[in-house]
Amino acid sequence: MPSASQTIALKSGSVPTAILGPTGYTGLELIEIIARHPGMHVAYLASARVPAPRIDHEFPRLRGRLSAAAAECRAIDHDAIAAACRLAFLCLPHEAAMEHTPPLLSRGVKVVDLSAAYRLRDAAVYERAYGHPHTDPANLERAVYGLTELARDRVRNAELVANPGCYPTAAALALVPLLRARLVRTDSIIVNAASGVSGAGRSPKQNLHYPEANENFSAYGIGVHRHQPEIAQSLTMWGVGPASTGSERASPAAPDPLFVPHLLPLERGILETIYAAPVNSETTTEQLRAALRAAYEREPFIVVRDEAPTLRDVQRTNCVHLNARVVGGHAVVVAAEDNLVKGASGQAVQNANLMLGLPETAGLL
Amino acid sequence: MPSASQTIALKSGSVPTAILGPTGYTGLELIEIIARHPGMHVAYLASARVPAPRIDHEFPRLRGRLSAAAAECRAIDHDAIAAACRLAFLCLPHEAAMEHTPPLLSRGVKVVDLSAAYRLRDAAVYERAYGHPHTDPANLERAVYGLTELARDRVRNAELVANPGCYPTAAALALVPLLRARLVRTDSIIVNAASGVSGAGRSPKQNLHYPEANENFSAYGIGVHRHQPEIAQSLTMWGVGPASTGSERASPAAPDPLFVPHLLPLERGILETIYAAPVNSETTTEQLRAALRAAYEREPFIVVRDEAPTLRDVQRTNCVHLNARVVGGHAVVVAAEDNLVKGASGQAVQNANLMLGLPETAGLL
Amino acid sequence: MPSASQTIALKSGSVPTAILGPTGYTGLELIEIIARHPGMHVAYLASARVPAPRIDHEFPRLRGRLSAAAAECRAIDHDAIAAACRLAFLCLPHEAAMEHTPPLLSRGVKVVDLSAAYRLRDAAVYERAYGHPHTDPANLERAVYGLTELARDRVRNAELVANPGCYPTAAALALVPLLRARLVRTDSIIVNAASGVSGAGRSPKQNLHYPEANENFSAYGIGVHRHQPEIAQSLTMWGVGPASTGSERASPAAPDPLFVPHLLPLERGILETIYAAPVNSETTTEQLRAALRAAYEREPFIVVRDEAPTLRDVQRTNCVHLNARVVGGHAVVVAAEDNLVKGASGQAVQNANLMLGLPETAGLL
Amino acid sequence: MPSASQTIALKSGSVPTAILGPTGYTGLELIEIIARHPGMHVAYLASARVPAPRIDHEFPRLRGRLSAAAAECRAIDHDAIAAACRLAFLCLPHEAAMEHTPPLLSRGVKVVDLSAAYRLRDAAVYERAYGHPHTDPANLERAVYGLTELARDRVRNAELVANPGCYPTAAALALVPLLRARLVRTDSIIVNAASGVSGAGRSPKQNLHYPEANENFSAYGIGVHRHQPEIAQSLTMWGVGPASTGSERASPAAPDPLFVPHLLPLERGILETIYAAPVNSETTTEQLRAALRAAYEREPFIVVRDEAPTLRDVQRTNCVHLNARVVGGHAVVVAAEDNLVKGASGQAVQNANLMLGLPETAGLL
Repeated sequence: MPSASQTIALKSGSVPTAILGPTGYTGLELIEIIARHPGMHVAYLASARVPAPRIDHEFPRLRGRLSAAAAECRAIDHDAIAAACRLAFLCLPHEAAMEHTPPLLSRGVKVVDLSAAYRLRDAAVYERAYGHPHTDPANLERAVYGLTELARDRVRNAELVANPGCYPTAAALALVPLLRARLVRTDSIIVNAASGVSGAGRSPKQNLHYPEANENFSAYGIGVHRHQPEIAQSLTMWGVGPASTGSERASPAAPDPLFVPHLLPLERGILETIYAAPVNSETTTEQLRAALRAAYEREPFIVVRDEAPTLRDVQRTNCVHLNARVVGGHAVVVAAEDNLVKGASGQAVQNANLMLGLPETAGLL
Repeated sequence: MPSASQTIALKSGSVPTAILGPTGYTGLELIEIIARHPGMHVAYLASARVPAPRIDHEFPRLRGRLSAAAAECRAIDHDAIAAACRLAFLCLPHEAAMEHTPPLLSRGVKVVDLSAAYRLRDAAVYERAYGHPHTDPANLERAVYGLTELARDRVRNAELVANPGCYPTAAALALVPLLRARLVRTDSIIVNAASGVSGAGRSPKQNLHYPEANENFSAYGIGVHRHQPEIAQSLTMWGVGPASTGSERASPAAPDPLFVPHLLPLERGILETIYAAPVNSETTTEQLRAALRAAYEREPFIVVRDEAPTLRDVQRTNCVHLNARVVGGHAVVVAAEDNLVKGASGQAVQNANLMLGLPETAGLL
Repeated sequence: MPSASQTIALKSGSVPTAILGPTGYTGLELIEIIARHPGMHVAYLASARVPAPRIDHEFPRLRGRLSAAAAECRAIDHDAIAAACRLAFLCLPHEAAMEHTPPLLSRGVKVVDLSAAYRLRDAAVYERAYGHPHTDPANLERAVYGLTELARDRVRNAELVANPGCYPTAAALALVPLLRARLVRTDSIIVNAASGVSGAGRSPKQNLHYPEANENFSAYGIGVHRHQPEIAQSLTMWGVGPASTGSERASPAAPDPLFVPHLLPLERGILETIYAAPVNSETTTEQLRAALRAAYEREPFIVVRDEAPTLRDVQRTNCVHLNARVVGGHAVVVAAEDNLVKGASGQAVQNANLMLGLPETAGLL
Repeated sequence: MPSASQTIALKSGSVPTAILGPTGYTGLELIEIIARHPGMHVAYLASARVPAPRIDHEFPRLRGRLSAAAAECRAIDHDAIAAACRLAFLCLPHEAAMEHTPPLLSRGVKVVDLSAAYRLRDAAVYERAYGHPHTDPANLERAVYGLTELARDRVRNAELVANPGCYPTAAALALVPLLRARLVRTDSIIVNAASGVSGAGRSPKQNLHYPEANENFSAYGIGVHRHQPEIAQSLTMWGVGPASTGSERASPAAPDPLFVPHLLPLERGILETIYAAPVNSETTTEQLRAALRAAYEREPFIVVRDEAPTLRDVQRTNCVHLNARVVGGHAVVVAAEDNLVKGASGQAVQNANLMLGLPETAGLL
């Protein structure tokens, strides 16, 4: 008869990791993903709360699935974390991420940061978007923006990965191949997106109170959401380099899409309906799909489809489903992902797998 | 062309009323019910907030449906309220209700109190259930417990009506006729109930945060919820007097039911599945239904049915749907109501109609 | 004590109406709206089902709110309907609407048709969109497209009103004032829309089965939905006539927007996030809002706001809330309505009020 | 770079299994659980549909996670299944399960049947509950009722396991230890239960249509649901044998609980609030909890808690959370499980693990 205390056994040979800030939704998602991971385990849960909580009291769904020892959160002690772990996932506020990343890196702990602290290459852009100065510009330089499918080789060698935002992940995966193939114009891109409420975090708020968010739907942050510069950065960084098709046309202007998110009455999932102008009137649906298929044919987590995906198709998977078409003179791309998996903790594990020399898909299928 | 500022016109001859505490869900529900009421209007919105809000900023769904003047909340000024209104609805915390009721009554303003302040006849029971002393025992004596169908004549002459709790309304309407007909025993009654989240109020809380309440269901306050003494009081007051069937048996013991509420992932509605022991093994389904039909045959808001009701059958109506049967040796009664209408603001207007000499159903069909 | 059989009394002087096809969601909504209407009642429920159902068996929420006689559906008998009613609401399939409209009109019964049968002026466009020929072109010519705010005077004198589609209502109300004021270009308009599931009707389908629609979100009919020609017709009919601003510029090309609807996991409500190109780089948010305010300042059901509306702001009201802004080089307009009220049965009653000489807002506030 | 076609690789040494009837919710759940299982894979998807579907067309969320070959459903060919698989999971209608079980067993394929075909020991009881005769009484005799925690040793040696129903699993796990410890009486047990809609299957129905099930809650099958005899059988089989506490009291009467299920507006999860009479007035909360803890202290999937569990605590896990207390003279036990996991496919894999000599928790943590 198995014993409850062995339910998530110490996997011999598995890599010990830490989670800093495990009491939010991305922390819980990491714990659950890593619990099924054959080559990685959580050796240190670090919380800034005093007293540090037991994670299975915070999330009773972990009851019986972690040993009592594993369920105890401890203080954010850099030495102790470094002694116990090879890699740390940071699920902290942006400012706290900038505080704890340097001491962890200096102690040889690899870092996957799920906050926005190291995502934007330009500290000035960061400050405008997030409203406070960047306090760790040195590490900002060495951070690798971990949109895995587009940065796989750099991630493999990174000490610090800035895990992408949920909205930007889907937008970049949808658009970069079309931009690189010069099938759509860089100007006048509209990223119309909708996210489940878990994307807004775990702190109660009036507009996220059940009787107000339930049966409701709304646009928010129209054109001014702080994920916009991150989307623009990815489209510029990967979408407008030398054309992959060998075109001799000059690189087009840097994309600066309009980003309009909406709040959905559901727990998790992001659907983006993206509008762009085809480069010319002869651009076809088939060309768009061919470009996406060519870009992702060997990717385990990207599914290019002939029909528009639904959120249910991707929830609780690390997959992004893509569909593109030309209709009414517009290119329309629909992208679906789970905001807590590929949009956060799943991609974090995907990146950690690469950083640790593990199979990229380990724990994620 | 009609003008927006006239959309909810001053109805000539209609009774001016006040709402104290209009920024919660029962306040909003009152405003919307009274807006359609042919003989009553809201003349004073009184809020303790400083500065007093505009109610259509608090609830944008009121935009364009109230004039700017009608949308302004004002201070809780007893003289001003008395000058403007004949009746006040109190949607305040219990303690505040005990503070504002005496000065309103003394100024000749009738009061329908939607808090629990005046519901329990015994101040000691109140203090045990609510955790603070009763500060207005004088008015407690004269308050009429306004379960309209069971107290119609007293309500008609009341100056102060204690509007019943949401759970107790359905439980009493379901059980009283069966107890009076001596069809079920008073001991071992179980009121298993489930309510939508609006019943928990408008203040954000962790367990009511959308991603936690959504797709969730749980029991709470098992056997210790403060609506239990209110249910027991109604069953005792109305259920165990001299039997309506002319029985010579002695009155049975006072009912003291087990009350177990649950939280449903939906906005509004209460369903109670009530278990009781038939008085003897010959009690039939038909007897239960006949007793309910006899009690409610002329009631506009009580529907006795042959099938179990669903919440959708009663949402946004002032109706209670009832179904009863004997099965497996138990009497099972299912009662459905809208917690914000018959369970709160609808019944408050029903009571106010009687207190003001208006048709009981005005504004409620 | 009031009697249940009088709960919805025959209103003296009120206009008798018929509902053909009352067993769907628009039928139920009509019954509930008219039940509160001071000047109109339902005198004839006509169903094609054999045997004709009792409507309060079909919708138990009507139990106790209609007399037994009022709850009986009868056959679709044109003579009987004409003998009993002055106006008929048709909630029938498109083909059935074309079958029953001529005999009702010829018997002097005014018709508000909630199907799409008479919405598109051009029978050829209708046939392409709906896949069957138009069988009543004669009445198509005399039908008035009843987007009330834009067609009030024609509706007042109409015998046959084609009640607009849910999506087109919001889109036209949002865009027409901006097009008329020549603030946005007619080309490259994108109507990104999302609707609750009630918009898809009452027949069970796999994708609308609760466990599949719940927690889900998806785009459908991308660029090919049959409401697109209806939107284009309204924008052309009302948006590109002689400019209201006295401009001497030639009328622009007919708008042919891209329309992309999505399916929301909620019962009711439509939110449209509409993208258009400002006519020039100096167009401002203030200009957009001023144009909307000017168009709707005296409208009881149109609310122009400074913040983006949510669905909760309009559910179960006949109101449309509008917000517009210029951001990132785009004009973005957000429109919210209840698809069953202003998008269907509410606007139908609004039109019927005008056709019958009743106050336009009667029963709708 | 990993290849999509290898995403769910053939695990060397893993056991090949078949799923008959994979196009329902239990089939999908099995596919997803087994995809993460280190010692088992799906080698044969067998569907009665003609033509047999691709499972990743039926469930697009499987796109990219199964190879094209693995995604093809094939006919229900007993020889082919026996050639390819050691064990078959049957997710078929009851009658079809009785048809396909004998030929599979006779070919040496172990069977875990998720239908009700082999759950009730008495064919006459089966026929009354399910309305058709039992056509395979021979195998009914050898079938092991697979409530794993209570039948572990028999399951280990079974060729045919009748996988328990969703409601009966939670009810038996909650009550058996209390009955065995003679802490509650066998008469007057009430199992008040509520399930998510996935428990009603994947076929669209009017009452499961999204706009009708959403925001709704109702009791159904009150006292007559066909899981009642299954619950009674388990309580009798395991609850009223010789008392585990050494009591010399005679075995009590066979339990015949009242079972009242409700339909919740959510996808998955069952919460049972169970009422029973303590054996005497001295029975305490502590005794109930001690009995549960003693019974389950070494169980990996049973969590005995001091607080009432919520559905969110168990969704998408194979765990059952239990809480018990004595209050108001009643014993109240709350049990939570995921109806598709411990209530169906998870327990099926748990049983299959035992039947195949694999670790019981494999694939389930």
